[in-house]
Amino acid sequence: MGKVYLVGAGPGDPELLTLKAHRLLQEAPVVLHDRLVDERILGLVRGKKVYVGKEEGESRKQAAIHHLLLHYARRYPFVVRLKGGDPFVFGRGGEEALFLLRHGIPVEVVPGVSSLLATGLPLTHRGLAHGFAALSGVVEGGGYPDLTPFAHVPTLVVLMGVKRRVWIAKELLRLGRNPQEPTLFVERATTPRERRILARLGEVAQGKVSVEAPALWILGETVQVFEEARLKAEALPWR
Amino acid sequence: MGKVYLVGAGPGDPELLTLKAHRLLQEAPVVLHDRLVDERILGLVRGKKVYVGKEEGESRKQAAIHHLLLHYARRYPFVVRLKGGDPFVFGRGGEEALFLLRHGIPVEVVPGVSSLLATGLPLTHRGLAHGFAALSGVVEGGGYPDLTPFAHVPTLVVLMGVKRRVWIAKELLRLGRNPQEPTLFVERATTPRERRILARLGEVAQGKVSVEAPALWILGETVQVFEEARLKAEALPWR
Repeated sequence: MGKVYLVGAGPGDPELLTLKAHRLLQEAPVVLHDRLVDERILGLVRGKKVYVGKEEGESRKQAAIHHLLLHYARRYPFVVRLKGGDPFVFGRGGEEALFLLRHGIPVEVVPGVSSLLATGLPLTHRGLAHGFAALSGVVEGGGYPDLTPFAHVPTLVVLMGVKRRVWIAKELLRLGRNPQEPTLFVERATTPRERRILARLGEVAQGKVSVEAPALWILGETVQVFEEARLKAEALPWR
Repeated sequence: MGKVYLVGAGPGDPELLTLKAHRLLQEAPVVLHDRLVDERILGLVRGKKVYVGKEEGESRKQAAIHHLLLHYARRYPFVVRLKGGDPFVFGRGGEEALFLLRHGIPVEVVPGVSSLLATGLPLTHRGLAHGFAALSGVVEGGGYPDLTPFAHVPTLVVLMGVKRRVWIAKELLRLGRNPQEPTLFVERATTPRERRILARLGEVAQGKVSVEAPALWILGETVQVFEEARLKAEALPWR
């Protein structure tokens, strides 16, 4: 009976793998992976690769993933279950871990660099944000999330929110957030094709901002300060 | 003029360094580091090590750190500024990045595995937590944080909250959190001396729970489910 390692692949850049994830990918006889894991990272795998990805909102397939994990865990000395970002931050790794533990399969979580950090912006900042929150734009069965508990947290990071960005922005405004608040979408963060789109919350609510999914969306005062500093820095002669 | 890499050292275990952090530590002519970075990680550094740590709440030293960074950036081809966890999650990396950018020094952030993930518990979980928030128990100049915006987020992670745990618990109860809510303190997470302390929020408010700083504190329904599964699993014969 093989142990299952639930491994975070980080936000995309292969150099942002942890040493442990890197070692396990090379040693694992079998790796079950998602759609969001970068090709360059999958290239490290020497054993069998099994694609178990699902598209945004396809939650019915989760049970099938559980059974595949069980299947491989019973046949191999150990199994790597590789997930984009960190397995325990919106990765449904918790469900997989519980399912396996309840079937007597040992589980070890190898945390990764969360995709939340891939915007390159600080989530907290003295005087601007003494904490942050993260939420998903899609909940169980494709439902809409309750934004009330998150509405007044200084920095907000929204995952899987691109398709519903107008609804989310309107809802946050209704709950009292400022339409002038700076927000930033980051498509394909940390990869060579990264694209950054700055927009006020009010503009997003008005449907004026085009973004391609998947993208991270970060809202809060730190956005303005840092994008300005970053853009100025890019204009300096040493770049 | 040297580039400054703001590098996350991860939660403690040296295998949770990213490949990039590992490479930069070995290549850097000089590394400025905090108190919370593990000795085994500092052992990787071949260049000069400069300790710039400060104790909890010692915020006046931040200006001195900025000037040390500037000093070394002007003298070395590049500099690593190493921080526990991730530099942009409660790491004050944002302040250091802005200061350096404003002085014309190139800055690159190398994200790390955030200490928030070091409890080994999922921060989100289908049906239990559709998002999470993180906050610090200490704000600018040693002040107390405003907990109002965070009070109703499903999973809460509190950093630097051990000394003020009774105040924080009482305040969260006053704002409407449930005294029966399961919470977990994790001292020295991911290191061989890790210690886990389960307690209800109400017990913490009554001053009944002893914990040693520094420790992570996680609150929410996922805590119960996972600690139970983990403890059961530890009792299985394969451990």
